[in-house]
Amino acid sequence: MTAVVLDMSISVDGFVAGPDDGPEHGLGIGGEVLHAWLADGDGDPSSYRPADEAGALVFDEGLATGAVITGRHTFEYAGRWGGDHHDGVPVFVLTRTVPDEPAPGHARYVTDLAACVAQAKAAAGDRNVLLHGATAAQALLRAGLVDEVALHVVPVLLGAGRRLFDDLPPDHVELDLVRVLDGPDVQHLHYRVRREG
Amino acid sequence: MTAVVLDMSISVDGFVAGPDDGPEHGLGIGGEVLHAWLADGDGDPSSYRPADEAGALVFDEGLATGAVITGRHTFEYAGRWGGDHHDGVPVFVLTRTVPDEPAPGHARYVTDLAACVAQAKAAAGDRNVLLHGATAAQALLRAGLVDEVALHVVPVLLGAGRRLFDDLPPDHVELDLVRVLDGPDVQHLHYRVRREG
Repeated sequence: MTAVVLDMSISVDGFVAGPDDGPEHGLGIGGEVLHAWLADGDGDPSSYRPADEAGALVFDEGLATGAVITGRHTFEYAGRWGGDHHDGVPVFVLTRTVPDEPAPGHARYVTDLAACVAQAKAAAGDRNVLLHGATAAQALLRAGLVDEVALHVVPVLLGAGRRLFDDLPPDHVELDLVRVLDGPDVQHLHYRVRREG
Repeated sequence: MTAVVLDMSISVDGFVAGPDDGPEHGLGIGGEVLHAWLADGDGDPSSYRPADEAGALVFDEGLATGAVITGRHTFEYAGRWGGDHHDGVPVFVLTRTVPDEPAPGHARYVTDLAACVAQAKAAAGDRNVLLHGATAAQALLRAGLVDEVALHVVPVLLGAGRRLFDDLPPDHVELDLVRVLDGPDVQHLHYRVRREG
């Protein structure tokens, strides 16, 4: 059963980037602390594998997904991952307007939310779909299309920046905590969205 | 060493009350879920003691504090706790304007933040000070006067309501996780604010 897993590093006060995130500073001013639990990498995502057991496990889970859904901003701010987020799985980039230039590598632009999720799930086969980025997360949460939420909670209050959970309707989305893993300077909380019936 | 401990139940998306909180609905619309980890009480705080071990422990820690700091809204929305939050310890209510009518019971209104914290610490002696309420929390966080943060994280996305961490400057406040306790449908995360030097 393929699950859409929202997977984000987040501060205790709910930010996934510091202020003024943009192409030059994907994590905003001072937001790098949110990714400090990942080992120093050289830009190749596979080099970010953390050394500790908990970090390595959740990192590997992310890379075991069969498709990626992200938003246009995250895609651009991450340098489009050079067209390959991991292992050549398809990357679906939600956007209002499809640019003239085609997306690089294994990425493609999509404008229809439901079609995007359906295509990502079909592409993932029996693997999960990795959902990344605040705007895309909010779009899927509003549509009830998120199945699991994996938060890597970094013990810092950023005070300001980009919130993961924002501009959502006052609908209660009940979660079940399915796993807590304790890493050095990060806690990995994995929730499953509770479905009716 | 007396610590000022910010102690709040909070949703995964960072809300401490649902929308439209007020004197009639202290936890806002649908916000009661945030206190569901506390046993059903009859209005007497001592009757809220949770049955599970983790819940009972953090509940008892709250009631072992020697003074309370809160904001005017929380104070009013909570029915002023009948003038006694617990055990007759002094309750310092931060307010911009001191009302004509004196505060009931063991409560007193205070307008100066630094004086409030100094008085609360003095009153608490060798016990901790309980800090409760979003507005008061933000005031003390801005002033660097919070020593510990105890969050009771309820696995729900409320989507909207009153945020605990809001209107703060982009200062990094680094935390150290000192304890995680797992209760039924709640995780208790206890952080200590990291001090320089």
